[in-house]
Amino acid sequence: MTAAGLPMRVPAPGLPARVRIHEVGARDGLQNEKSVVPTEVKAEFVRRLAAAGLTTIEATSFVHPKWVPQLADAEQLFPRLDGLGDVALPVLVPNERGLDRALALGARRIAVFGSATETFAARNLNRTVDESLAMFEPVVSRAKAAGVHVRGYLSMCFGDPWEGAVPVAQVVRVAKALEDLGCDELSLGDTIGVATPGHVTALLTALNEAGVPTGTLGVHFHDTYGQALSNTLAALQHGVTTVDASAGGLGGCPYAKSATGNLATEDLVWMLDGLGVDTGVDLGALTATSVWMAEQLGRPSPSRTVRALSHKE
Amino acid sequence: MTAAGLPMRVPAPGLPARVRIHEVGARDGLQNEKSVVPTEVKAEFVRRLAAAGLTTIEATSFVHPKWVPQLADAEQLFPRLDGLGDVALPVLVPNERGLDRALALGARRIAVFGSATETFAARNLNRTVDESLAMFEPVVSRAKAAGVHVRGYLSMCFGDPWEGAVPVAQVVRVAKALEDLGCDELSLGDTIGVATPGHVTALLTALNEAGVPTGTLGVHFHDTYGQALSNTLAALQHGVTTVDASAGGLGGCPYAKSATGNLATEDLVWMLDGLGVDTGVDLGALTATSVWMAEQLGRPSPSRTVRALSHKE
Repeated sequence: MTAAGLPMRVPAPGLPARVRIHEVGARDGLQNEKSVVPTEVKAEFVRRLAAAGLTTIEATSFVHPKWVPQLADAEQLFPRLDGLGDVALPVLVPNERGLDRALALGARRIAVFGSATETFAARNLNRTVDESLAMFEPVVSRAKAAGVHVRGYLSMCFGDPWEGAVPVAQVVRVAKALEDLGCDELSLGDTIGVATPGHVTALLTALNEAGVPTGTLGVHFHDTYGQALSNTLAALQHGVTTVDASAGGLGGCPYAKSATGNLATEDLVWMLDGLGVDTGVDLGALTATSVWMAEQLGRPSPSRTVRALSHKE
Repeated sequence: MTAAGLPMRVPAPGLPARVRIHEVGARDGLQNEKSVVPTEVKAEFVRRLAAAGLTTIEATSFVHPKWVPQLADAEQLFPRLDGLGDVALPVLVPNERGLDRALALGARRIAVFGSATETFAARNLNRTVDESLAMFEPVVSRAKAAGVHVRGYLSMCFGDPWEGAVPVAQVVRVAKALEDLGCDELSLGDTIGVATPGHVTALLTALNEAGVPTGTLGVHFHDTYGQALSNTLAALQHGVTTVDASAGGLGGCPYAKSATGNLATEDLVWMLDGLGVDTGVDLGALTATSVWMAEQLGRPSPSRTVRALSHKE
């Protein structure tokens, strides 16, 4: 339905010229889908994402298969992703055992998954926040010693389903601790999608004041309340240049099964294309990839852009 | 699922203290629904919206029933809305015949519906843009003479399904013409949902430069590509204080039947509550109203906030 030339490119002052999209659909997305996707379909998904221009594609997780059966094929999947050239393929590792598995396969980027709140740390990691940081310490130091890039996910940065609003100072403390461990970048997660733009700006400002530079910060918004893109705009206005998103909006929020999860990469690219912010992504190819993946999963994409662009009158 | 105290209130600098939501669900929403809703259900919908704190509720349309059978009961509905106190109940009037009907019932606010593009004017109004302005002239002047407040809708301000991107200067010309006719306020419509934030800022700036003050401008965004709320944020940052929205996201885009239409009032209120911008709206009561209306229509609300808040684990 969309005529050529849309969205019209009209830059806004004060935004970055380029944004790096950290594509999480293959890991964070598929991990939260009910169906277990065949390994070759996952590999083809990553290849199509790369062909659409995404340059950072989180590929899988080396968590114990008991916890995430959807990604139990990490050892089989990762080697199939050779030949993607300069595309970065970070993998999630929960602990040293996961790191061993990732390093054995030649992974060059890993991510650890922390929590800003005690309740989520207890439920998701079976540890206190400080115990989880202690668990990450050898993971990060060994990865760094091996020359591997480390991302630190920080969940529940804005709200927590059990604790409610999360104080900014509490998030800053854990973020600083992850940086002190040696993380190269942090991803600030709004895991339940409750953030609003002023909260985003306040957290980024507080992190800067605590000595964490914006250049090491990524944002990871969920669209549970439809807020992901306006929060992203606030982050861009603050200077953030790394934005997490999930192709087709894959992955529900595990704590609200009917709710929408990750920001859809297509909705993000529509906005950035309109703003004239370079991502390197071809929106048409990306949408076609998400339509294909939705067919594999047997359900429509929740991305509004995918639905609009793939709609046939 | 949401813990108390969410969203956390964190104001952002430079935003208005208060926003007036122009609720369009009962008119723009129901007009685009397949089902024809019984008059008493419509009246109850408006009453519940008012009870939830909305102060401007577009009630119906005095267009010929042949064109919009969903709102053919305007004469029966409007008198049932007595007793809502200070709540403003604007009605759409397409022409002098519609104005006669509205004035006969004592309407104190009307709206006319113009187009920024020739193709949409031809298809929707069966006129050129200038012919439509000529048709509005006696409507606006007679309404003003009767002390009636006049809103001018301007459709296709950012993109048009046939013409593609719409030049800013073209929108400014028609907006100025509507103001010159005597419209008290304008509603800038992104009818197909293609706008992005820089485009919004550019149009508002150009209108200011042409002598149209921000205080007379409202914005009307569609969520077809998921952009409505980030565009709203850009408009608020420019100083706009009137935002159109539709309870529960009622009303699809007539030109893309699978696509989402109007910005959902709940998604907007979530953001404004978080930003500490006063709307007077009780989000819980509004969500309950949209859940009730969705039951009447027999389909779930497309609002992400409604779905998240009404979800039962």
